[in-house]
Amino acid sequence: MEHHIAPTTQRSVRRHNLGVVLRAVAEGGPRWRATLATDTGLNKSTVSSLVAELIDLGLLAERGAERRGSVGRPGLAVEIAEDGAVALGLEVGVDWLAVHAADLTGTVRLERREGGDLRGRPVTAVLDQLAEMTRAALDELRAAGMRPAGAVVALPGLVDARAGTLLVAPNLGWNDVAVRAELGERIGDSLPLEADNEANLSALAELWEGAGRGVRDFLHVSGEVGIGAGVVIGGRLLRGAHGFGGEFGHVTVDPGGPLCACGSRGCLESRAGLEAILGAAGITGNAAPAARAGELAERARAGDADALAALHEAGRWLGVAAGSAANLLDLSAIVIGGALGPLAEWLAEPLERELRTRVLAASWAVPSVLPARLGPEAAVRGAATQVLRRVLEDPASVRTLV
Amino acid sequence: MEHHIAPTTQRSVRRHNLGVVLRAVAEGGPRWRATLATDTGLNKSTVSSLVAELIDLGLLAERGAERRGSVGRPGLAVEIAEDGAVALGLEVGVDWLAVHAADLTGTVRLERREGGDLRGRPVTAVLDQLAEMTRAALDELRAAGMRPAGAVVALPGLVDARAGTLLVAPNLGWNDVAVRAELGERIGDSLPLEADNEANLSALAELWEGAGRGVRDFLHVSGEVGIGAGVVIGGRLLRGAHGFGGEFGHVTVDPGGPLCACGSRGCLESRAGLEAILGAAGITGNAAPAARAGELAERARAGDADALAALHEAGRWLGVAAGSAANLLDLSAIVIGGALGPLAEWLAEPLERELRTRVLAASWAVPSVLPARLGPEAAVRGAATQVLRRVLEDPASVRTLV
Repeated sequence: MEHHIAPTTQRSVRRHNLGVVLRAVAEGGPRWRATLATDTGLNKSTVSSLVAELIDLGLLAERGAERRGSVGRPGLAVEIAEDGAVALGLEVGVDWLAVHAADLTGTVRLERREGGDLRGRPVTAVLDQLAEMTRAALDELRAAGMRPAGAVVALPGLVDARAGTLLVAPNLGWNDVAVRAELGERIGDSLPLEADNEANLSALAELWEGAGRGVRDFLHVSGEVGIGAGVVIGGRLLRGAHGFGGEFGHVTVDPGGPLCACGSRGCLESRAGLEAILGAAGITGNAAPAARAGELAERARAGDADALAALHEAGRWLGVAAGSAANLLDLSAIVIGGALGPLAEWLAEPLERELRTRVLAASWAVPSVLPARLGPEAAVRGAATQVLRRVLEDPASVRTLV
Repeated sequence: MEHHIAPTTQRSVRRHNLGVVLRAVAEGGPRWRATLATDTGLNKSTVSSLVAELIDLGLLAERGAERRGSVGRPGLAVEIAEDGAVALGLEVGVDWLAVHAADLTGTVRLERREGGDLRGRPVTAVLDQLAEMTRAALDELRAAGMRPAGAVVALPGLVDARAGTLLVAPNLGWNDVAVRAELGERIGDSLPLEADNEANLSALAELWEGAGRGVRDFLHVSGEVGIGAGVVIGGRLLRGAHGFGGEFGHVTVDPGGPLCACGSRGCLESRAGLEAILGAAGITGNAAPAARAGELAERARAGDADALAALHEAGRWLGVAAGSAANLLDLSAIVIGGALGPLAEWLAEPLERELRTRVLAASWAVPSVLPARLGPEAAVRGAATQVLRRVLEDPASVRTLV
């Protein structure tokens, strides 16, 4: 039977080594084949063959004419192909749609964001609009010679990632929407498409390239109208038994408190979600919550008492919930992101005070409160990076792409 | 340099394989050497040599005279040595001290428990008493030919496991007690000694041999005077950034509620800890809380309205906190253990009702509420098993023991 096993193993070793070489270039920058052999411990002829396949896949390219005339001609260096793989992150927010593309070096190649409160708009109209934005982005990327390797769509609610279904998004009023199928059909492309929770993707983005780098245990709070979170434990995103973890906005902070859109009472987001803060600060009107959040920050900066009181109160409630999370999980940091990120300077002090009071281990280790680094792009960046990491793990997976 | 590396590697491979063989016997029962070779994939002469070393370490023994006269004489089977390694679990509870010993098959070889409310007793007197119990147990075990391989002491508070220090146990009123050093000195033995949080150890015991077997994501609630918990994620105990995770009793359920022994307000244990329930049910007196918990169960069984109301109220508060934990962690089960275990039949219904209301994903996956299986012995069993698992991983570690 061995002749059946050996070729498979060789193929899987080669497939693995394609990733080793591609990651060495993506992380280390342009490289000669000989350098790659030293970097990876693979022999030179293997490296040459792997590089040839990666060039063929459109992921690496020869580094143009430089050194071409030099004495001894050490061969051309290879680099990440400029017209190579590109990954898409898509997002349905409560008050925006976004499309983002990044190449294998992490460089942003395209960004589109269309604002406007989506609550109350028909699901089909929203998906039509996002599909239209995605198709336009794909055309633009392909016209520039790039090869889209996949897309992940970030959604503000409970997502069954395996089925690609949004089960519920209380703040959008969406229930049981087969986003992967519906959006995929509208885009009408062979592009691999997945769906995930926006708070999970934002937390991953902060872990990979933001405030969470080097922090192994933290909660990343994605505060918008709703409040989601990603829980990172030991440097890995916690997904839980069914992928439904991180619903920080539905931690009960006030059991007899106001009714939440989810049907429970006294959820954190009914006390510290953007609508609750804006309402307490007396900032009403028809502008999208994100725009009004800007107004809130301006007023707070100007010393407006109502704005400051509303932020203080929200920080306190965030601290009650974060204290509970820290007691359960022994976190090193609470990262404040999403629309709450720019408000973190006013939220942090009351939040920290609650942590010092409520965390049993506070005398030895009180979690730091940090503002997120990536801003409102965190979820789409995390979504695109999720695709890129898969290409870097298994470059041969792009073989079937257009 | 290779001659420096190879012997080390060979030794570490051999050390690893000692564990492979020992675990095969511990899990599979008595075995011939030839069967062990088949079971483990090691060759027969290697197995014979490893078995000889395990017999020399006192961990395996030849299986006596059986088959001795049989035709063909296939050699003696080996089994876990009856006079082999034994592991100790010790515990300082709020109202008991316990010592427990188990051998490599998991069979309990000794159990001692001394009741009495420890609150207010001097730390030194309590440690003197536990050391005395431990010394007596060691004498008894050694007299029976067993070799104690180590002890873990379970403590009802925040433990710095690396230092072996109890940082704080609000319900005992203990602060900063170097339990490993202080207790080790009193025992006056070369026995390796470690300290850990009782709720972590109880959760591990339920995971390994109780209600948590086969459940990959659950919260094990250790309810005594205080309420601790072990958080199991993906089949592993979450310890957090500093080992302080699982402080479920200090999840805030009622932010303006009663002052807790920890200094915060409205902690779960001030609403659903044993003292709170007994107080609400009107069961006062000088008996230790565990004894009064028995009285509470009797009254509830007899239909006493105050007892039932107190349990209903506690279940509701447990549900508020468990709902928050489930929203964050996407748990499959809430296991009710410790002194609350025998009360689970009355706590479960209001607890489940809160979960159904408060968990965002409840329509798709509401955590089950399960009674713990192991009872008040969970922490000492987990403590002893912790030692045993280490011996099974690395049998050579017992070489230096008496």
